[in-house]
Amino acid sequence: MGLFSKDIKTMDDLFQHTLQDIYYAENKIVKSLPDMIDTASDRQLKQGLQAHLKETEGHVKRLEEVFQMMGHKAKSVNCPAIDGIIEEAEEVTGEVEDKDVLDAAVIACGQAVEHYEITRYGSLIAWAKQLGRSDIADILEQTLSEEKAADKKLTGIAESKVNMRAAS
Amino acid sequence: MGLFSKDIKTMDDLFQHTLQDIYYAENKIVKSLPDMIDTASDRQLKQGLQAHLKETEGHVKRLEEVFQMMGHKAKSVNCPAIDGIIEEAEEVTGEVEDKDVLDAAVIACGQAVEHYEITRYGSLIAWAKQLGRSDIADILEQTLSEEKAADKKLTGIAESKVNMRAAS
Repeated sequence: MGLFSKDIKTMDDLFQHTLQDIYYAENKIVKSLPDMIDTASDRQLKQGLQAHLKETEGHVKRLEEVFQMMGHKAKSVNCPAIDGIIEEAEEVTGEVEDKDVLDAAVIACGQAVEHYEITRYGSLIAWAKQLGRSDIADILEQTLSEEKAADKKLTGIAESKVNMRAAS
Repeated sequence: MGLFSKDIKTMDDLFQHTLQDIYYAENKIVKSLPDMIDTASDRQLKQGLQAHLKETEGHVKRLEEVFQMMGHKAKSVNCPAIDGIIEEAEEVTGEVEDKDVLDAAVIACGQAVEHYEITRYGSLIAWAKQLGRSDIADILEQTLSEEKAADKKLTGIAESKVNMRAAS
């Protein structure tokens, strides 16, 4: 990032910058998910997060493929948004003692992460299409579908049992 | 937040904490939106953000009503997530010179804010229902609908013209 010049000049630059942002975010999620899995108690929740960790490792690989397709090296830029979302998740879950309430908190934190990814992939896909790269949009669509499915799965676990147990 | 004790003991505590988190976030958005409006060029985008600023002021009032209904004083806790999302928005938009690319960036940043709110209100509504407070869930549903509509409106502005101009 330039100190004296504005580095994002074109839509292509904005796309690259956002790709580097989500590459940082996905890598950070890979590092943070194991703690979330340890924190959760419900077996289905633990398994769901574990399965999503595997998927997230795949998202990192897919982003590396996209960088390559654009003729760039995979690279990260700092992403204060995901840093803040994960910092908040650690703060909140660190404040909860009861294991059922903690599961409800873990789900909410996980959904905040999913929603951040959903919005970024949504923008990237729209921009890729506009830039005439529907091949890249197709790859990112696969990840977006998995993020949406993960979010939905968390809602299902919350509403089918976790929230009920947490409130009782 | 206690240094030596875990302060979130019940689902009700988790609800209160998240209410304080989104109260901080909504107030921060009220302060940040005017800069986003100044940064945008497209007239419809400016007007949309301006209308959403008015709505956001209403969301703050609604949260104060919910605090009151629960017999608590309206209060904020720090929300590193929204701080990070807004810090990132300022960083990215500060890097863009071209006004059409800047509009595309403003929309993406606005949608990241909307998605954060959508996920938090989603959790709060599910928890309020579980806690037997469907009266509170109904109030929060009104805000959630407005956040979803704002997100959809931004997608519409991006896809109908802004992305096309930014890529040309």
